[in-house]
Amino acid sequence: MEALLEFLTRFLTQFQSPTLAFLIGGILIAALGTKLEIPDAIYKFVVFMLLMRVGLDGGMSIREANLADMLLPAFFAILIGIVIVLIGRFTLALLPSVRTEDGIATAGLFGAVSGSTLAAAIVVMESEGIAYEHWAPALYPFMDIPALVMAIVLANLYLRRRDGSSEKVRIWPIVKESLQGSALSALLLGIAIGLFTRPENVFEGFYDPLFKGLLSVLMLVMGMEAYTRLNELRRVAHWYAVYAAVAPLVHGLIAFGLGYIAHVLTGFSPGGVVLLAVIAGSSSDISGPPTLRAGIPTANPSAYVGASTSVGTPVAIAIGIPLYIGLAQAVFGI
Amino acid sequence: MEALLEFLTRFLTQFQSPTLAFLIGGILIAALGTKLEIPDAIYKFVVFMLLMRVGLDGGMSIREANLADMLLPAFFAILIGIVIVLIGRFTLALLPSVRTEDGIATAGLFGAVSGSTLAAAIVVMESEGIAYEHWAPALYPFMDIPALVMAIVLANLYLRRRDGSSEKVRIWPIVKESLQGSALSALLLGIAIGLFTRPENVFEGFYDPLFKGLLSVLMLVMGMEAYTRLNELRRVAHWYAVYAAVAPLVHGLIAFGLGYIAHVLTGFSPGGVVLLAVIAGSSSDISGPPTLRAGIPTANPSAYVGASTSVGTPVAIAIGIPLYIGLAQAVFGI
Amino acid sequence: MEALLEFLTRFLTQFQSPTLAFLIGGILIAALGTKLEIPDAIYKFVVFMLLMRVGLDGGMSIREANLADMLLPAFFAILIGIVIVLIGRFTLALLPSVRTEDGIATAGLFGAVSGSTLAAAIVVMESEGIAYEHWAPALYPFMDIPALVMAIVLANLYLRRRDGSSEKVRIWPIVKESLQGSALSALLLGIAIGLFTRPENVFEGFYDPLFKGLLSVLMLVMGMEAYTRLNELRRVAHWYAVYAAVAPLVHGLIAFGLGYIAHVLTGFSPGGVVLLAVIAGSSSDISGPPTLRAGIPTANPSAYVGASTSVGTPVAIAIGIPLYIGLAQAVFGI
Repeated sequence: MEALLEFLTRFLTQFQSPTLAFLIGGILIAALGTKLEIPDAIYKFVVFMLLMRVGLDGGMSIREANLADMLLPAFFAILIGIVIVLIGRFTLALLPSVRTEDGIATAGLFGAVSGSTLAAAIVVMESEGIAYEHWAPALYPFMDIPALVMAIVLANLYLRRRDGSSEKVRIWPIVKESLQGSALSALLLGIAIGLFTRPENVFEGFYDPLFKGLLSVLMLVMGMEAYTRLNELRRVAHWYAVYAAVAPLVHGLIAFGLGYIAHVLTGFSPGGVVLLAVIAGSSSDISGPPTLRAGIPTANPSAYVGASTSVGTPVAIAIGIPLYIGLAQAVFGI
Repeated sequence: MEALLEFLTRFLTQFQSPTLAFLIGGILIAALGTKLEIPDAIYKFVVFMLLMRVGLDGGMSIREANLADMLLPAFFAILIGIVIVLIGRFTLALLPSVRTEDGIATAGLFGAVSGSTLAAAIVVMESEGIAYEHWAPALYPFMDIPALVMAIVLANLYLRRRDGSSEKVRIWPIVKESLQGSALSALLLGIAIGLFTRPENVFEGFYDPLFKGLLSVLMLVMGMEAYTRLNELRRVAHWYAVYAAVAPLVHGLIAFGLGYIAHVLTGFSPGGVVLLAVIAGSSSDISGPPTLRAGIPTANPSAYVGASTSVGTPVAIAIGIPLYIGLAQAVFGI
Repeated sequence: MEALLEFLTRFLTQFQSPTLAFLIGGILIAALGTKLEIPDAIYKFVVFMLLMRVGLDGGMSIREANLADMLLPAFFAILIGIVIVLIGRFTLALLPSVRTEDGIATAGLFGAVSGSTLAAAIVVMESEGIAYEHWAPALYPFMDIPALVMAIVLANLYLRRRDGSSEKVRIWPIVKESLQGSALSALLLGIAIGLFTRPENVFEGFYDPLFKGLLSVLMLVMGMEAYTRLNELRRVAHWYAVYAAVAPLVHGLIAFGLGYIAHVLTGFSPGGVVLLAVIAGSSSDISGPPTLRAGIPTANPSAYVGASTSVGTPVAIAIGIPLYIGLAQAVFGI
């Protein structure tokens, strides 16, 4: 009982963090009809800056990391990416008012990873002083790519069976398209530069100090975007809203459980477990949609983008991050 | 005599401040035909960053402020907003070569407030070490909204009488439109986040350190814009240029006088008096025009935007700010 | 032998510098088909920020500089600008598969100066602790303008003789167009503000700390751009690629030699010699092309822009800068 109370207190405290404040503020002013606009060029650049910072940090710490430590979490990341899509395939995509390919595409987007949500979690964890393996963000592609591949393959299998066509689904183009996406490009480039060169100066003097502040700008944009996209969500079946509200937390908790196993078996840190859960709970708003549009052209983007941007991401950030941190504090006593 | 000399010396010293240097530099290179361009996306973002910083600072200090101290300055702000429009109504708008509705709209714009000018004053004051109530920027809407409402009401009363129409002027849409403007949105959101959450980290690590530098960029843009808009001003009656050159200082000095009364009655700080004068002397370049365009559709934007951007704002910044600071130093001995 | 080995070691070490890492990273991810995009507004702003920083620094140090020290380097800068164009006129422009006016325009672009390359050299030198006269970047226009004027005059002389026309080439419009270009405007404005006002605060709190980081962003953009422009280069004669690979280093070494003479005669610092070589080795990607397009309208921009952006600039940065620094370390024992 006392533990639950403490958990709730800690959970609620986090609503005072600027990360959440800017997200909720963005939703509010958009709802009030603000004409404030963060230009798209700024938005794209902010995302680049955050992923480059996360990537550089990851790359520099992989240098000193024991690669064997990364194996189990990376395997779990792949597993989670696949399981998330399977869950969506056999829940959302089977519902009567949901077109099957739309449901599978949505599950793919929720299996894919959001760099912004990842960055938000890192800022919150660093301001709370929670340690984590700095290579953990490198788990991103291990979950992102299998989820997108899985969704596109499942959707095409379904469509082929339905239409009696026999076109083959080719996997490599999907993987390639994912890797070329702006978010993964920036993250992997950052990791490579961190790993092979000496970017400490530019990391400590530029990317790192601007990280927290730029995230606040991004959260504001995402809040405003979430409200704006609600219209798209309203045009599709209510089940998308239900899925988008519940799935991030279910996915995060599954990942938390697997992360816990990695903690017991290989000493994966509590902070790493939180990040794995955050990655699993996030849904891709930037890089995922174009890949899905190319891979499942008949699916309706309003369904998956609306669900992810206007409900999935706010839930993943505003409820997911405090939840997993609170859970880690309760479970690991950090 | 000696006091006057000291005042002049201090006044001239401020022309070496980077704030003015960038403003004047912008005017100069535009006059010389530069192809340098600060993209619009950057301009919008810089304005957002400055107002968010001012808002956060205001919000955090309202937490500890005695709200009663704000009452008299807020009342004076409302009064000044209304008086400025009345002055314009019975001077500029009555001149023979000035269309009455254009004159009233211009007066409304000069009664409305410029966030950029406010930010410039704060940077100058902070680098001169002049203390002020950090909630003073929250006076912005108290002057801005009454001025716009007053101008739109007066113009519509005039047009109705002239045209014999009997459409009613509705006040709430004007207030709402003002509050939704990008500048007020950013300022009020900043105040709310500063007041209700704990943004100290992101304020001290991001918004505050970038404040001075981003202002220099903004000043450059405003200088270039001022020169570019001169063409618009040339197309309308010369009285607009005269009004735009004189009105900011008249408005600022009226506000300085009322601020002095607040100083005597409730201990409003000398720095606060300067800010009140700066707010009164400023004219709105970003948020005011759309509201006026919607509220007085028959008024000619070239008249009011040209007057404000190319003469009013440079005068308010380059002459007004040093003038009120010099005056405060002379009057209050700071 | 040992000296050569040491030179090579130092040369190779610099490939770990983040400046080169981001440049090469940009080329790589563009070659891999990334969808990452640094918006054009950001690119323009970054260039402005870098040149403003270099300009402010230059202006502030000219205040304390002995102007007589600048005379010989400035004269050499003019000389180099002219010589570079003459070299191109009598090598590249005489080759059988090269249209004469295209060859001259290309030589003009390689004689003109790149602010980005200059900024890259400054960052590398400051992180290596190599001192230089901070007014050295002010040599930029002394080389840039004569080179562009020379190229446009030579091309027009050639075209007039060929076509039997007798239109006169007017020099002042070319000079004016160069000075109005975005890069020179920003640099000269920075120098003026640094020289005549007191921008120390805004320099130390904004322009300087962001310098290194923004350069890394610029290098990334330039790397991506270099790869993209390769297509244009492929469409023209191979000689352009050969010229673009060799000329920057030839020009840089000529300048290094003249800089050495200035070192012996007037004590021009080793760092200053390196910067003179970097300026000579650079080719203008931003400001040069519009001036050339206006001055030699019949020349094919694909030839000169492709050669400069996709080969010239990467060579000037990735090979030129380490080469001149290594040479300076060997020659001057710094």
